[in-house]
Amino acid sequence: VLVALAARFPEERFLYLGDTARVPYGTKSARTVAAYTLRAADFLLQRDVKGIVIACNTASALGMGALQAHAEVPVLGVIEPGAEQALAHSRGGRIAVLATRSTVVSGAYPGAIHESDPARAVQSLPCPLFVPLVEEGWLDHPVTATVAQTYLAELQADVDTVILGCTHYPLLKGMLEGLRPDLAWIDSAQAVAQRIALWFEHGVVARGARPADKPPIECVVTDDPVQFGRVALPFMGSIPLGSVEMVDL
Amino acid sequence: VLVALAARFPEERFLYLGDTARVPYGTKSARTVAAYTLRAADFLLQRDVKGIVIACNTASALGMGALQAHAEVPVLGVIEPGAEQALAHSRGGRIAVLATRSTVVSGAYPGAIHESDPARAVQSLPCPLFVPLVEEGWLDHPVTATVAQTYLAELQADVDTVILGCTHYPLLKGMLEGLRPDLAWIDSAQAVAQRIALWFEHGVVARGARPADKPPIECVVTDDPVQFGRVALPFMGSIPLGSVEMVDL
Repeated sequence: VLVALAARFPEERFLYLGDTARVPYGTKSARTVAAYTLRAADFLLQRDVKGIVIACNTASALGMGALQAHAEVPVLGVIEPGAEQALAHSRGGRIAVLATRSTVVSGAYPGAIHESDPARAVQSLPCPLFVPLVEEGWLDHPVTATVAQTYLAELQADVDTVILGCTHYPLLKGMLEGLRPDLAWIDSAQAVAQRIALWFEHGVVARGARPADKPPIECVVTDDPVQFGRVALPFMGSIPLGSVEMVDL
Repeated sequence: VLVALAARFPEERFLYLGDTARVPYGTKSARTVAAYTLRAADFLLQRDVKGIVIACNTASALGMGALQAHAEVPVLGVIEPGAEQALAHSRGGRIAVLATRSTVVSGAYPGAIHESDPARAVQSLPCPLFVPLVEEGWLDHPVTATVAQTYLAELQADVDTVILGCTHYPLLKGMLEGLRPDLAWIDSAQAVAQRIALWFEHGVVARGARPADKPPIECVVTDDPVQFGRVALPFMGSIPLGSVEMVDL
């Protein structure tokens, strides 16, 4: 999501907060995720951000409501843009949501889909092993393919579109498309960037004017910055990663 | 470890603290694990415990030193008892340690083994996918067997003894023994109970006298107590689980 935003809005400055000490969120309870999301937002608000994107599906599913009531700046999660994109790609069939257990239990995706299309059939499928497999870098490993086949065997016959409802899952998109090329696979990063474009267009937030000497991205993490830099760098493409600072939330 | 202790010392009262909101520890940096271990210990000390057992290998490996300097009660980790037991079972071959990445990086097991036997060959093998597979309950799943085979293929030829160096791994002991019945597989729970017996014998801590109306175990967790109860109950055997309280560390 960050790469999509930084590529599309080069005049903006991004402050990325990664709660690396307390990940993963997808196995935590609703109240813990909501509490951690609020603490993370408080940190960002102290740094005078003009808007917040929750680029974690679980935090979007479980922390969005509390955060929108709490923050004095606009807040965007990844659930609604992803749901909207799935509806745009679907040919009327069932929409499947692959997500962490906490996101599935929240019912956030079916809720967002039903706001636009109350009669649409939705199937939610928890895929808890995808996050550790991606973290392990086993993107093309036969074990990951077997796990993916095990999960996808549960898909109902009328599914035509699948939402990759966790930030890690798009890294498996190639493998998943290979297993089921007949389905539309939805990654919400571009949809999030599109929503932010609307924020600027409608004056929800003011456009930025980044000085040439300021990096486009500053990173703050809650665990070892060196380890984070190693993991994050391959994702960044041509976008330079600025400083990485460590804080305790 | 808790079940082994509660079964062996029925007159004692145990206060179990599970940092369920911030698990797993095995992927976190040394300073974060040490900081979380100290905060957990502070909570236990406020509740007037007479001794502390760190029943997590990663917290033992990375938090033990700081905690021993900090706590005014005796502290026991799982590393030394496990290393001692491995040396007792080995026929002189190489000792392998299966553990989380953070425990492996710490070098705690080789350190403990070399204190007793400086010339002993040790192989450390990170097995990061075992924790999520166990959490998923895939104990007899073909995926888990394939992952185990992938990891065990790395074992050097002269290994004769393997330490299950993470609290989750003993749940895979049956599968691992099935794959390599020629090796001695070490689970440190009984070794920890044996060390605590020595604490009582040598007066390091006083023996308890639990009133019949007090439960042997009280649990405190940092995430949803109901979810914890569901996961913990199958482990408890005939030992009743008392109240489960939630705290924020």
